[in-house]
Amino acid sequence: MLPKNQIAEEALRLHALYGGKIQMAPKCPIRDSRDFSYWYTPGVAAPCRAIVADPEGVWKYTNKSNMIAIVSDGSRVLGLGNIGPLAGLPVMEGKALLFKYLGGVDAVAICLATQNQQEFIRTVQLLEPSFGAINLEDIAQPRCFRILDELRRTMTIPVWHDDQQGSATALLAGLIGALKVAGKEIDSIRIAMIGMGAANFATYRLLKAYGVKPEQIAAVDSRGTLHRKRRDIEEHRDEFREKWSVCMETNPDGLTGGIEQALRGADVCIAFARSQPGMIQQAWIRVMARNAIVFACANPEPEIWPEEAKAAGARVVATGRGDFPNQLNNSLVFPGIMRGTLDARASTITDEMAIAAALELARYAEERGLREDAILPKMGDWQIVPRVAAAAALKAQEQGLAGIIRSREEWIRLATERVRESRRICEAVVGAETQELAADVGERAHIGIG
Amino acid sequence: MLPKNQIAEEALRLHALYGGKIQMAPKCPIRDSRDFSYWYTPGVAAPCRAIVADPEGVWKYTNKSNMIAIVSDGSRVLGLGNIGPLAGLPVMEGKALLFKYLGGVDAVAICLATQNQQEFIRTVQLLEPSFGAINLEDIAQPRCFRILDELRRTMTIPVWHDDQQGSATALLAGLIGALKVAGKEIDSIRIAMIGMGAANFATYRLLKAYGVKPEQIAAVDSRGTLHRKRRDIEEHRDEFREKWSVCMETNPDGLTGGIEQALRGADVCIAFARSQPGMIQQAWIRVMARNAIVFACANPEPEIWPEEAKAAGARVVATGRGDFPNQLNNSLVFPGIMRGTLDARASTITDEMAIAAALELARYAEERGLREDAILPKMGDWQIVPRVAAAAALKAQEQGLAGIIRSREEWIRLATERVRESRRICEAVVGAETQELAADVGERAHIGIG
Repeated sequence: MLPKNQIAEEALRLHALYGGKIQMAPKCPIRDSRDFSYWYTPGVAAPCRAIVADPEGVWKYTNKSNMIAIVSDGSRVLGLGNIGPLAGLPVMEGKALLFKYLGGVDAVAICLATQNQQEFIRTVQLLEPSFGAINLEDIAQPRCFRILDELRRTMTIPVWHDDQQGSATALLAGLIGALKVAGKEIDSIRIAMIGMGAANFATYRLLKAYGVKPEQIAAVDSRGTLHRKRRDIEEHRDEFREKWSVCMETNPDGLTGGIEQALRGADVCIAFARSQPGMIQQAWIRVMARNAIVFACANPEPEIWPEEAKAAGARVVATGRGDFPNQLNNSLVFPGIMRGTLDARASTITDEMAIAAALELARYAEERGLREDAILPKMGDWQIVPRVAAAAALKAQEQGLAGIIRSREEWIRLATERVRESRRICEAVVGAETQELAADVGERAHIGIG
Repeated sequence: MLPKNQIAEEALRLHALYGGKIQMAPKCPIRDSRDFSYWYTPGVAAPCRAIVADPEGVWKYTNKSNMIAIVSDGSRVLGLGNIGPLAGLPVMEGKALLFKYLGGVDAVAICLATQNQQEFIRTVQLLEPSFGAINLEDIAQPRCFRILDELRRTMTIPVWHDDQQGSATALLAGLIGALKVAGKEIDSIRIAMIGMGAANFATYRLLKAYGVKPEQIAAVDSRGTLHRKRRDIEEHRDEFREKWSVCMETNPDGLTGGIEQALRGADVCIAFARSQPGMIQQAWIRVMARNAIVFACANPEPEIWPEEAKAAGARVVATGRGDFPNQLNNSLVFPGIMRGTLDARASTITDEMAIAAALELARYAEERGLREDAILPKMGDWQIVPRVAAAAALKAQEQGLAGIIRSREEWIRLATERVRESRRICEAVVGAETQELAADVGERAHIGIG
């Protein structure tokens, strides 16, 4: 793996060399400028008129059915904090590249020049006509909760917040695999959740939807365990209503203390906390239950290094990094779930669809052979996307949310075709220029895409 | 040329076949998913940090420097009227395709779900971080005037309203050529302007900037000539302030009546009125000055057919259509002027830049040989874009508005490279699928791109 500063240097050079990393391209053939009589005036009036006659035609005659907006205010970008919309743009453009390359989804990076919640919400609502779905990204909490809830309630297209739902779905997939490896049952485990930001609260919600009882959980934030006597949270319960609900629902014994106390006897540790190895100490892993499972998800560096957790007795350890086994990676989820959502023209993305995606990922990993160091599929495996897409689409159908009905085989075939076509385009566009990249094949870093 | 209904049918079929016409593609090579360690985490943090340290870096490390938004509210789409944002989307996507194919400019089609002026303005302002310029499109007047003025005043990136500025620039280019052919001088002609919507008011403004005196002009709207006693306009002078300014400045003799009266003795007729042949009658052309010049710009059908105008004595006739000589076409202007503006990182697009573009188009037409039926370059000629780009960029430099300084040769070379690369991508992406298009080469319609 390349050293960190060398990756940074190379990334900077390459971003400047290409002037960004994503562009527009035609979907349709253009033999010469006369073909614009179909694509523009006078021919374009025909699809316009068809959409006037039936607004549903917009899904048929325009890019809406495969075009999403990645929208951020730059208020919590990667591990970099509130760096603002301009500095957040490279990340959103990178996400657009991932959506295209992995899922065949066309995505536009839109960083808004406001961190006002109402203004952000209104702006995204007004973007609706051009897009088939919205992917929210890198928005600080608790604003991100309000924004997601309000947009899901008011928009007629699906709205997904990857930092919440994508992380939670990947985590659940990993948990299902890890439990099998460790020989534990979901309804008899105790879970410690470390850090209660957007990702872990979404995970909490998805675990509940999956059937985990809140009483199985003890959560910890930077001030200690969450319980009913946390006056500091109760005083701001309107603003931090998610965290307050965790105080009220979990930790029935009113456990006090910090991470160590929460981990004592726990089967599973789910940390989405600070990128600070040592934040979770080896001694605290030792007091967990036998065959403990540790998710240390902070990026770029986990809350505890895998070898340390293993040495302290953890049976399964997962992180956000690609240079260790068990990479917990949003990119296992978002390309497929968005692919399936768009293909089925689902009106929203439900928790049940996310769970179906997680189960499909777990099933896929099991087919490949579950091991302590292989609880999840690897992101390089492109069959994941069609499988997750089909799982999401079928669940949308079952829930009566799909605009298009197909069989599993048809969904897989369709998604496979779209991903294949997308890869063809990615190769066609840049075919000749590959030599511009650093010739470090085999020793390249591939860390924490998520 | 294919009959109108056949073009419409084929356009509908093709739009559905491709599911729209524009998509995203990488700019950069991706050998496999491990390369995302440069394009996404962890490498992407480096350009983020560079932009935090110096916000100008966003032009270097992201797509901003070549990415624009085409924004419409769908309130006045082509000749179709207020069909709304969903139905307007095929046009905006078509425009994005033109921007890419002709100018190498990456453009995102954004149709906003509001026709409220303030809300529209605020939304476009909030889009600023992601884009290098804004192209407004198909917005009803007088709202479009307020929106353009306010956005030009408040945004730090250039804002262009193609229906205003693009049309005016193309018209001026055609007028310069036509005057040479007809042997007339700009400062001694009389001009009749028919229809005072967005395009003709912008033309009026640009003609003034070019040196035409308002006293040389008489304008006509649907209720007759504009003059100081038009109480119907005066009563709404706040709303229709542009039209009222024309009432106050032009037509010093207080000429009353309609189109016929305005054309009597005029050297030039500039009509951006209704798509209704016969709206300007042959008899009225007969009362114009000798060697009269007629611009009948309504689309898809001009206010008078060219052969009728010629038969009535017009020396030069131009329309918006590609199946007649002298096509007045915005696509002669917007790809090049946007190319030059982005390349020079101009902070705005001034009237002087538009005039420089018009002069360059006229010069190019003259080099090719000015004739009655060739007052303008043809849109198929791709050298136009680099020439117009260079003219705009140089004028921006001269006015102190450019962020980058280069010579004319360098601007032309740069724009040529960008257009060539764009054509390569257009071919690479859709190479294999050309057979899907109707096999009507040689008899295809090519009308009125603008």
